[in-house]
Amino acid sequence: MRIPTEAAVNETHDPNRRSWIASANAAGCDFPIQNLPLGVFSTAGTSPRGGIAIGDRILDLAAAGEAGLFEGPSAEAARAASGPTLNPLMEAGPTAWSALRRRASSLLAEGATEWARLEPLLIPIAAADLRLPAAIGDYTDFYAGIHHALNVGRLMRPDNPLLPNYKYVPIAYHGRASSIRPSGGTLRRPNGQRKPAGEEAPSFGPSRNLDYELELGIWIGTGNRLGEPIPIREAGRRIFGFCLLNDWSARDVQGWEYQPLGPFLAKNFSTTLSPWIVTAEALAPFRLAQAARPEGDPKPLDYLWDAADQAGGALDIGLEIMLSTEAMRREGIAPQRLAVSNARHLYWTVAQMVAHHSSGGCDLHPGDLFGSGTISGPAPDSLGSLLELSAGGRQPIELPGGETRRFLEDGDEVILKGSCRRDGFVPIGFGECRARVEPALPV
Amino acid sequence: MRIPTEAAVNETHDPNRRSWIASANAAGCDFPIQNLPLGVFSTAGTSPRGGIAIGDRILDLAAAGEAGLFEGPSAEAARAASGPTLNPLMEAGPTAWSALRRRASSLLAEGATEWARLEPLLIPIAAADLRLPAAIGDYTDFYAGIHHALNVGRLMRPDNPLLPNYKYVPIAYHGRASSIRPSGGTLRRPNGQRKPAGEEAPSFGPSRNLDYELELGIWIGTGNRLGEPIPIREAGRRIFGFCLLNDWSARDVQGWEYQPLGPFLAKNFSTTLSPWIVTAEALAPFRLAQAARPEGDPKPLDYLWDAADQAGGALDIGLEIMLSTEAMRREGIAPQRLAVSNARHLYWTVAQMVAHHSSGGCDLHPGDLFGSGTISGPAPDSLGSLLELSAGGRQPIELPGGETRRFLEDGDEVILKGSCRRDGFVPIGFGECRARVEPALPV
Repeated sequence: MRIPTEAAVNETHDPNRRSWIASANAAGCDFPIQNLPLGVFSTAGTSPRGGIAIGDRILDLAAAGEAGLFEGPSAEAARAASGPTLNPLMEAGPTAWSALRRRASSLLAEGATEWARLEPLLIPIAAADLRLPAAIGDYTDFYAGIHHALNVGRLMRPDNPLLPNYKYVPIAYHGRASSIRPSGGTLRRPNGQRKPAGEEAPSFGPSRNLDYELELGIWIGTGNRLGEPIPIREAGRRIFGFCLLNDWSARDVQGWEYQPLGPFLAKNFSTTLSPWIVTAEALAPFRLAQAARPEGDPKPLDYLWDAADQAGGALDIGLEIMLSTEAMRREGIAPQRLAVSNARHLYWTVAQMVAHHSSGGCDLHPGDLFGSGTISGPAPDSLGSLLELSAGGRQPIELPGGETRRFLEDGDEVILKGSCRRDGFVPIGFGECRARVEPALPV
Repeated sequence: MRIPTEAAVNETHDPNRRSWIASANAAGCDFPIQNLPLGVFSTAGTSPRGGIAIGDRILDLAAAGEAGLFEGPSAEAARAASGPTLNPLMEAGPTAWSALRRRASSLLAEGATEWARLEPLLIPIAAADLRLPAAIGDYTDFYAGIHHALNVGRLMRPDNPLLPNYKYVPIAYHGRASSIRPSGGTLRRPNGQRKPAGEEAPSFGPSRNLDYELELGIWIGTGNRLGEPIPIREAGRRIFGFCLLNDWSARDVQGWEYQPLGPFLAKNFSTTLSPWIVTAEALAPFRLAQAARPEGDPKPLDYLWDAADQAGGALDIGLEIMLSTEAMRREGIAPQRLAVSNARHLYWTVAQMVAHHSSGGCDLHPGDLFGSGTISGPAPDSLGSLLELSAGGRQPIELPGGETRRFLEDGDEVILKGSCRRDGFVPIGFGECRARVEPALPV
């Protein structure tokens, strides 16, 4: 059910607005003028700084600010985005975020008289080094994809796949912030302890069951003081924006290590993020009523219940997973789509995640990152991990060119994509979250 | 078994060395000249900066450095310790740490000609605000206290208390860095979801089973790059020092939330640290052979095995837990000792923790913090949590003045202490790790 987001929709979402940057108006472009995602970039010999993606270009916020193209609150916001991380902008709060978006939209719109001053400040995305957009204080990974929880639970407990707390508690664990990297790099296959069924003792060596997980990344804007929870009614406004997140997982390591305290080395060797933050405001037209919670499920406890959040807290973000193997690249075969899914399948809204995380007093800070949990859908072609696609490794999947996969092989490149579509609005996209598996170090 | 630490013992450990600061020579002083722990402090109207505790005073490293009292490598190290965090000093590495220690020991020793220039630079500890000594990038909590693991396991699985991975994997989980605070403050009792046995659905409210956990904190000095594990032979040298850590735990929240991904809100509302870092070098005389692993237990896998670490990687640190209730303070009753324990009961050495943590490629950084896990001993008076002391809350403990405790009440103050003793050496201490429980917010 579409929900009345009209109050949050403004002239920056106007489908008739076009940019004087031609590439932004092309069909299929992830970054039309209705998107305006934020990131941090550098070019050869320059310092990392904040920018806005528009078409195939980046608007350099530091340069545009120095050129006097922002004014009032938007000038302050552009200044806050001019350093090596977006944390100061995140801290500035939703009024500042919105002022920056409105001014950037106006500057980049067809007919803007400032175009001649701005054009020299645009940098081709292809020439930029895209960094992590913020210094991540703490990273928390949720488990809000109920179909994933069901699928994984079925592999382990066929009779009782979903644990009794799942529909009450937005399950999460603390992840490792230091090993998060932006899209476009490599990850080394981890060595770790594995103990296959039937072997008496574990051994140490390369993970044999390396997997991806399709997740949404959620960037916290404004936080809270220790001991002062964020009420559910305010929680949505604390979110700065969203990206794609690949929570690489070593399933064999995970299976052996995770009792009783949860995943550790199975997850902390690498996490990959798409570099552009699609802001909460850009996503306003793509909100939905929370529908992943079927009739008959328990009502969320009061601290997680807000009627407005139920009515419009879910996100309609189409997601897909592509795989390209070394052999496919050698033979000129395009990346193969493994699954399509949608963020609407999350059982908990992002506001519920924020409210729950802070409900015991834990302090959140600008630049903290949440993962949503693996977003599988109910259909067989909507599974967010190889663990699910290959039924725990028992049913290899087939790839064009004749290869098969139970889990990832060295040289495999995983590409996550995301986009939002709605009649009457211009589609917007997330760009790519891509990384390639390198062989493990010799043991 | 004592092990041959003599190579690591130098003139800074000389039991005959005394300080010209009289309080440092008093019997029972935690901070004699043989200790020289590092911390970050401020005084009214001044910026936080690094200092060394000596007796009841702090040597202000920024002021002493500016006064030209350090030279060569020790001057660089003092400069690295002059800012609001010790991270730059941690990054500088063991040669710098040792140069700073040797020079500080020489400056503060009886007979030092510099005493008249130094004396005005000393600040009473009682007049200082003690901060967290470093900016903590990531916090990891281990589970290396095998008696705690056994005791907790017995409560849940009487027939099979220790999980099969325990003696192979240094079990750990990622904790929350943002909510770590220095000793001397308060913590608010968290609200959270609890589902007592017999109730059909969970409710949200104040934790009824609030607990402490006695742990050692381990400060990482130099780290590693992503994908480049730290070999076990080098791992010990990466550790900057140690403190006391109270891993406050809401047992009822934990029991309901922790499946399948481990503790989350049950632990992230507060963690308390003693503010002084006792350096690895100061602890050189108090090393032991690794004895917590009984004969017959599996040999650690190669990546965790180092003969020198087995011979001298354990730590002989005496630990104690004291409790002071509001009624006890009102009636003038001194804090009651609840348990005494010792870091020698850890099943894994800190070098094994470092090697394991990085073995899959996870990058560690200066200022990262590890918790050891709760350090219980084998005896009934050596239990590191109330969960164990009260047998899961079933056997309340008695306090002087007639009170009893299953778990912590509002107003309770928990005080952790640590100290090292060995014949032929001057005892050194850790100072206090203290915090008081405040009532929960109304729901």
